[in-house]
Formats: sequence, C-alpha cells, structure tokens
Amino acid sequence: TTNGPRGQSCVINIKCLNAISINDRQSENGGEEDTVDPWNVATNSAKGVDYDKLIVRFGSSKIDQELVDRIEKVSGQKPHRFLRRGIFFSHRDMNQVLDAYEKQKSFYLYTGRGPSSQAMHVGHLIPFVFTKWLQDVFDIPLVIQLTDDEKYLWKDLSLEDCHRFAEENAKDIIACGFDVNKTFIFSDLDYMGSSPEFYRNVVKVQKHVTFNQVKGIFGFSDSDCIGKISFPAIQAAPAFSSSFPQIFKGRKDVQCLIPCAIDQDPYFRMTRDVAPRIGYPKPALLHSTFFPALQGAQTKMSASDANSSIFLTDTPKQIKNKVNKHAFSGGKDTIEEHREQGGNPDIDVAFMYLTFFMEDDEQLEKIRQDYTSGILLTGELKKMLIETLQPMITAHQENRKNVTDEMVKQFMTPRPLNFNF
Amino acid sequence: TTNGPRGQSCVINIKCLNAISINDRQSENGGEEDTVDPWNVATNSAKGVDYDKLIVRFGSSKIDQELVDRIEKVSGQKPHRFLRRGIFFSHRDMNQVLDAYEKQKSFYLYTGRGPSSQAMHVGHLIPFVFTKWLQDVFDIPLVIQLTDDEKYLWKDLSLEDCHRFAEENAKDIIACGFDVNKTFIFSDLDYMGSSPEFYRNVVKVQKHVTFNQVKGIFGFSDSDCIGKISFPAIQAAPAFSSSFPQIFKGRKDVQCLIPCAIDQDPYFRMTRDVAPRIGYPKPALLHSTFFPALQGAQTKMSASDANSSIFLTDTPKQIKNKVNKHAFSGGKDTIEEHREQGGNPDIDVAFMYLTFFMEDDEQLEKIRQDYTSGILLTGELKKMLIETLQPMITAHQENRKNVTDEMVKQFMTPRPLNFNF
Repeated sequence: TTNGPRGQSCVINIKCLNAISINDRQSENGGEEDTVDPWNVATNSAKGVDYDKLIVRFGSSKIDQELVDRIEKVSGQKPHRFLRRGIFFSHRDMNQVLDAYEKQKSFYLYTGRGPSSQAMHVGHLIPFVFTKWLQDVFDIPLVIQLTDDEKYLWKDLSLEDCHRFAEENAKDIIACGFDVNKTFIFSDLDYMGSSPEFYRNVVKVQKHVTFNQVKGIFGFSDSDCIGKISFPAIQAAPAFSSSFPQIFKGRKDVQCLIPCAIDQDPYFRMTRDVAPRIGYPKPALLHSTFFPALQGAQTKMSASDANSSIFLTDTPKQIKNKVNKHAFSGGKDTIEEHREQGGNPDIDVAFMYLTFFMEDDEQLEKIRQDYTSGILLTGELKKMLIETLQPMITAHQENRKNVTDEMVKQFMTPRPLNFNF
Repeated sequence: TTNGPRGQSCVINIKCLNAISINDRQSENGGEEDTVDPWNVATNSAKGVDYDKLIVRFGSSKIDQELVDRIEKVSGQKPHRFLRRGIFFSHRDMNQVLDAYEKQKSFYLYTGRGPSSQAMHVGHLIPFVFTKWLQDVFDIPLVIQLTDDEKYLWKDLSLEDCHRFAEENAKDIIACGFDVNKTFIFSDLDYMGSSPEFYRNVVKVQKHVTFNQVKGIFGFSDSDCIGKISFPAIQAAPAFSSSFPQIFKGRKDVQCLIPCAIDQDPYFRMTRDVAPRIGYPKPALLHSTFFPALQGAQTKMSASDANSSIFLTDTPKQIKNKVNKHAFSGGKDTIEEHREQGGNPDIDVAFMYLTFFMEDDEQLEKIRQDYTSGILLTGELKKMLIETLQPMITAHQENRKNVTDEMVKQFMTPRPLNFNF
C-alpha cells in the first residue's frame, strides 16, 4: 500500500507530473493513459483518472446499477453512498461472493493501510468507512493489515517508527467503529513473528511468483532491494483464511473480499493468479476511485503537506481555513460570470468532497444543479463542505479519544472472531 | 544451504559436469576455475576443488599453523583433527574472535542444514562434529538453523515434507551430542512465526540488499521465484544475536562464529557486508572443504543415490559392501603394479574418508606412507575404513535411538541458553 488505506493518499506523483510536462501533454485527457500502480497515480485531467478506461485496462468489471441493486437485495440494506455514487466503481467476482452468500456460504473482509506517518487524513478513511458498512450489513469478520514492514522497505524510516505509526493508525481505524468481536487488526512486523501459518502462506506465494512477474506487475528493477521484490507475497497472504488459524478457527477455505483503492489491484491480480495454484479460493475485490487533494484531482495529496488535505487532527478553524483557501474551485472568476455561466462541479474539489461525505442524495443533487446553474456560489458551496466536515472530524476525534491502549491491544490480539460460516 | 549441513552434500553438479564435457576440458585441473556456490560445486580434478585458489578468489584467509596453534593456546585443548588436517582450511576474522575471547568477550556459534530429505550421510556430520567440538572447548552457546523454507523454495517438495525432514534431521544433529543447555535448533517455518525479532532482522537485511547484488553473489535470474531472491536474508539473520532475544537474554551485540562448508560463504559475505550498515557486528567464519562422494572427489554425492555415500542408517554390512564396491581407489590395477609403484592417496576416497574420521595422526600418516609405497593394498586400506566407519555409524544409530520427541522439543524451544558473556 502507499501512504493510505490501500492507496487512498496519492492522487498524483510529482515525478510523473514532471514527465507529463516534459512530454508537453495537454491538461485535458487527450487519450493519454493515466498512470495507476501502488506507488504512483498520475493523470493530466482535472476530473481525475479515467476510471472507465482503467476497468478495461485492468480487466476488472464495472459496478453497474444491477450489481448495486443486487447488493441491496442480498444485504437487505440501502446501498452505501459510495456505491450509489460510483466511488466504489469496479469489482472482481462480487457476483460470485453474493451467489455463495445467498446459499449461506459466508465470506470475510480484508483491507489495510501502509502506516508511513502518524497523520491520517479524511481520504484515508474511505475504505474503512465502506468496510465497516460491509461488515455491518453482511455481519462478517474482517482482518486489517498494517504494512509497517512495507513502509520500512519503501521509506527512509526506522522499523521502530513504522511500528509506532501502525499502532497510532490503528487507533484512527478503531475510531471508525469496527466491532471488536469481528475485527482483527495486525502489524506485519508483529504478526509475521507470531503466526507460523502466515509465514507459510507467504512462502507459498513467494515460490509461485517470479521476479519477471513482479517486474511486469509492479515495475520493480534490478536495483530495487530484495525486500521490495518479495513484499507482494506479504500483502497477498491475508487474502487466504488459512493465514489466520486462530481468527477463523482453522477454516482454510473461507472466501475473501477486499475493498481497496484501485491502485492496489496489481497486488491482488497477482494474488488471484497464485491462489488456485496453491489450493486456495481467489479473493474477490471492490475497487474505489481516488480521493482528490484539496488542490484538485490531478495534484498530489501528501501526509507531509498539511494543506493538501483535511487531517483527522484538524480543528474546526483549520478545516474552515483550508477549504476556503486551498480547495480548488470549479466556479467562475467573478460573481457575475458565475451567476451567468454557472460552476463546474466535475472539477470542483468542494463538490467532490461532498460527494464522498454528504449522506443525502437529493440535497447533493440539488447542490450540483444549483452550482451548475450559477445559483450557488463557490463560497456557499465551500461553507456547506465546511459544515459537513467539521462535525464529522470532531466526532472522529471524540471517538479516537475513547480508544484506549487496552482496546488497541484487544483488536490486535489474534483470537477467534464471531462469525457464522 | 544445499542438501547438507551448510553445503556438505554436493561435490559436483551434473549440469556443470555436462558443461565441462561440452567444453571438452581435461580431467586434470588445467587452470580452469572450479565452480563453488551454494547450489553447485564443480571441479574437473580428481583431487577435488583447488582450495588455495578458492581462498584467493573469495578473499578469505587460510587457516595456517599459526592460527591452529593459537586456537590450541586459547582453548587449552588439542586442535580438532579437522583443524590439524586442513579440513577446516579457511576463515574470516577468527583472530578477532580469539582476541576478544582472551579479553573475556565471548561469542556464539551458528551453523545449519537444509533438510531436503530424511536421509543424512556421514558428510552431513562434518560441520556438526566440528561445531560440537568448538562448543565444548570454548564453552559457548550455539544456534542451528534448519532451512526448511529454503528447501521448499528450491525443491519439488511440499512445505509439510520439508518441515518433517527438519524434525527428522534434528534427531541426527542432536545425536552428535550437543549440550541442550547451550543449543537451540530451529526450523525457519516455525521460528519465523514465533519470533518478531527474527523477522525484523530479516526485513532489515532485505532492505539493504538489491536484486543486482544477489544476482552477482548467487547467480539468480529474472525467472527465479521471489522467494529464492529474498531467501539469503533468512540465512543471514541468525548471524545477529538480536534475532534470538530469548536465547541470548536480549543481548544484541554478541559476536557470531559460523562453521560451514566453503560453498556457503556467499551467504555470509553478503551478511558481513550488510552487518555494519544495520548496526551489528560482522560474523566470523570457519570454512571446511567438501566431503567427497564414494565415487571420487569430482562426482556428485546425492541423498537420492544410496551408493554415493555412507548413510547414517546403513548397516555394518551395507557399509562394507559400499566401501568395497564403490569407493574410488587410488591403487594400481594389479597387486604386482601396486607393490611396485604404490597407490595415490590424494585421489583415493578410502584414504580421504580416513582423513575425516580416523583420530590418530600417526596411524593415518603411517597408512599414507604405506599406501604410497605400496606396502598397503587397496583392499587393506578399505578394510581400515570399514572398521572405522562401522563402529562410528553404529554409535550414531544408538545415540539417535535415544533421542526422544521430548528432547527434540526441548532443543527446538526458544529459551535462555547457558552462557557467560
């Protein structure tokens, strides 16, 4: 994972931006391919990555209305706004998961985060918010991998710092409201050393993937360290229930569903390729779009740049200032022009953020129309976002304050989870 | 490691032999380089590998008479026959280990075996016999790594079989007489999953070694699996005492001494290169020559070919038949010729084996002289070897019979060892 929960952090990579400017590309998508892998996401469109093209390129399937309706039918719950609005837009084998679920054959969820710093921003919450919803509506267990080993391998950080970030990030994750009886959170650095079964699955994957393959999938080169080269097996292993004998009470064939940002798909394409060869079911996937930086859908959101996003530690005042000052606007330069021509919500970050966080569909649609028609001004739109974010972040901070070290220990202790398989 | 205790199994590789025959090399060393790496040992000399050249090529140091005398002085014990006879012939930093030992700064021993089958032969015992002697004379702790993960990665074997072989091989190792209070034996598949500290050191090494480096050191290619590519870090980690916090009671700076066959040196050259960069002392090394196959010093000894060596399960009758039938002789074709011209002990496998296993220096020297002069016939020489091997193997079998599952468990449980550091 990158500096996000399976890739939510990074909308564009500086190096790639340079490459784009060298190639003198146009600022609107002119058929040029977006770059999407676990470490780089780059596009030159202000609307962000072209997700329909990505589905074709990755060979995944679109989450269409039919599938959303089916999830509603099988779960008996109104689909989450991320499904209703195409934020989770792509999948692999979700229909098969639902087929089995309807026949009383359940599944488990697996998601994760690469803990490269103590700071998490709202974008990092996307997969966790959605995963919690899936856990609730399907009543299923969940494992959350904190890849502190990966962050050590990729970043200029000590093992101790990466491990500390993992424990700090766990608190923010727990604050999302996961059920402790159905959720296991683990640090790779800890769990590898406390579960022989996990290491056995890592070695099994490592035997069935060549350097040629990871070079093709991840773009590794000969000058990469051998830790990076073998790491994909470590992100693969949690997709097999036999990696967690305590958690799943010895069940080795439980189907796995992985909600993650689409940039993590390479890991799981590899996992799905290996799975049948080592006797395990292929994990299914639900892919999300990327969360945009305040500066726009083609700029880089960085945990080290406090102004690139709303952080989970921001005060109401910081939120207000950041949105007003930094959120890229799709509005016009003057009020007169705006009233006359209207704003463009497709490139407006305040509107994009509302798409992620405002629950009411009708209200959101009205905002879209009013903004497009010019009735709603940029300042008014930003005010709505501020009033959505402030209570949300305050509530998160309250929840996090209530996460004790004891609770973290509980979530991170291997133990049987509650489930009905 | 190959199918031996750090490489003792494999004197020549079939593929390399083919290469030699294609290149139409002469059967005596004509300046051609021997091939020596953890998976291939190849020479075209009946005398075996040219070890003096290997020392120059590997950049290690010769164990000369001065060092042997010093080991005698520091340990207060007569040097082991493997030292007296140049079987352990090369080293790295052994003088530094002795300097520190004289100043009351002690060290620990690390050796290992790749458990690719249940069958072990006499050659496999060489490093263990020598390591036990070192443990006894220096009164120091010892860790023994069973690389069942490596065997799974390299061979067409299941994880379960490799792990089972590790436990079976542990019995033969324990039968060598190691002190349970000073010896920890571990399977990688088990220990990786029961020690976060071990995994942490593996990841540290993996961060500091590139694919380019392992390609250069081990000859890996792009079509090798990522498990092989990252494995060297797993053989490196036991050279750092912090990988064993229970064993060494948290001591992170204990110097390590590794007795092994010279073909394992590439692993530890890499380890020594990485050590200072991750804050650990470089391990010191003692290198042994290879144990020859019955068919001669340039043929392959294989656990799957029962006639290529004396196995630890052979009966006295099997030993007699194998030596008489298969041991390559340096004697002449007829008794008359032999009496007249004498035999050549340098290419005679029976004599080579006696060099490894006969304790009495004077007796061995007399045999050498009598064989060279023609007084001693091949049949008589072989009889001496048979009479040396039969009681040795019988005693080993008795010792092994007394190794209970309980004892195996004791040796393989992480626990504080007795030592005075």
